[in-house]
Amino acid sequence: MPSLKLRNGHDGCVIWLTGLSGAGKSTIATELEREMFNLGQHVYILDGDNVRHGLCSDLGFSPDDRTENIRRVGEVAKLFADAGVICITAFISPYRADRELVRTIMPAGQFVEVFVNAPIEVCEQRDPKGLYAKARSGLIKEFTGISAPYEAPLNPEIEIRTDLLSPAESVNTILQRLDERERLAEEQSDPFAVVQ
Amino acid sequence: MPSLKLRNGHDGCVIWLTGLSGAGKSTIATELEREMFNLGQHVYILDGDNVRHGLCSDLGFSPDDRTENIRRVGEVAKLFADAGVICITAFISPYRADRELVRTIMPAGQFVEVFVNAPIEVCEQRDPKGLYAKARSGLIKEFTGISAPYEAPLNPEIEIRTDLLSPAESVNTILQRLDERERLAEEQSDPFAVVQ
Repeated sequence: MPSLKLRNGHDGCVIWLTGLSGAGKSTIATELEREMFNLGQHVYILDGDNVRHGLCSDLGFSPDDRTENIRRVGEVAKLFADAGVICITAFISPYRADRELVRTIMPAGQFVEVFVNAPIEVCEQRDPKGLYAKARSGLIKEFTGISAPYEAPLNPEIEIRTDLLSPAESVNTILQRLDERERLAEEQSDPFAVVQ
Repeated sequence: MPSLKLRNGHDGCVIWLTGLSGAGKSTIATELEREMFNLGQHVYILDGDNVRHGLCSDLGFSPDDRTENIRRVGEVAKLFADAGVICITAFISPYRADRELVRTIMPAGQFVEVFVNAPIEVCEQRDPKGLYAKARSGLIKEFTGISAPYEAPLNPEIEIRTDLLSPAESVNTILQRLDERERLAEEQSDPFAVVQ
């Protein structure tokens, strides 16, 4: 569908939110979706709510299952991007290698890694679902940041410090960075642009 | 996103093409996509090309793997429908129970089973990919219609006889039936409609 971008006003892409539980991924995903929708963009969120209970209902939280979960999410996100949709994913996705695998299957420039970053002390204090408390008491095994590793992005396209920014500020920062990327890509593909 | 229908002009749904290899699923999917796109609808195809090599690259063609393949396709199609997209799927999907499982996970009325039907003799004569020849010679094991079962739909929303209709006629028939369903649904939800 070559005229998908023409119709939608944007290309499909994947905005991959990664970060600890409680860092604010879901909040930012929801606010970002709302802002993009209001801008007339075609946007969709993949998160635990619509993936873990459906496509990945056969998977648990062992390292192998986490890897397979992220592999499947990456493949589905790629399909959405191919359909011209801006696909926001909100998963802890703790392993660097898993996220890099998703990057490699995506067309160049269509994978935007967003590190939703807050110190674990802040995340644990927020503990919106009471999961850190359960992890500390041993009720939850292999909990990221407590009893399982989180491998922070080394070179994410965007980093948001949610202990320093409000959700609205975080979303505005993401939108600004996406605009900058878009302008840069257009300049680079414009044969009339002056090359320095 | 309550205003998705308002923006797109249609609800998301799944148009599930099922039928033997060579029955014409891919041809119809492609033509239907083109027609719907030209009507301004948001439409996307899931098929072997974009799913079997990606999301389901870990699966083969054993009965269990076929079932898991269709389960995942169903879950992804559901996500697309939830995103407001008309999702056309083109898979043999030989088992009745697998297709019915997909129907059960979809919101009521959003699963449209289309039986793409041609006698196996016709499909085998077409043999666009030479697969029937390989199946007959034993090069391909468990080939639907030859050495593995195909369970035809008992009560599909739409049936297309591709040995009797051209691809264009098939697509027109599907579009007409979808329009009829839409009109019926609107009448049933219109409080001002006269109830007989």
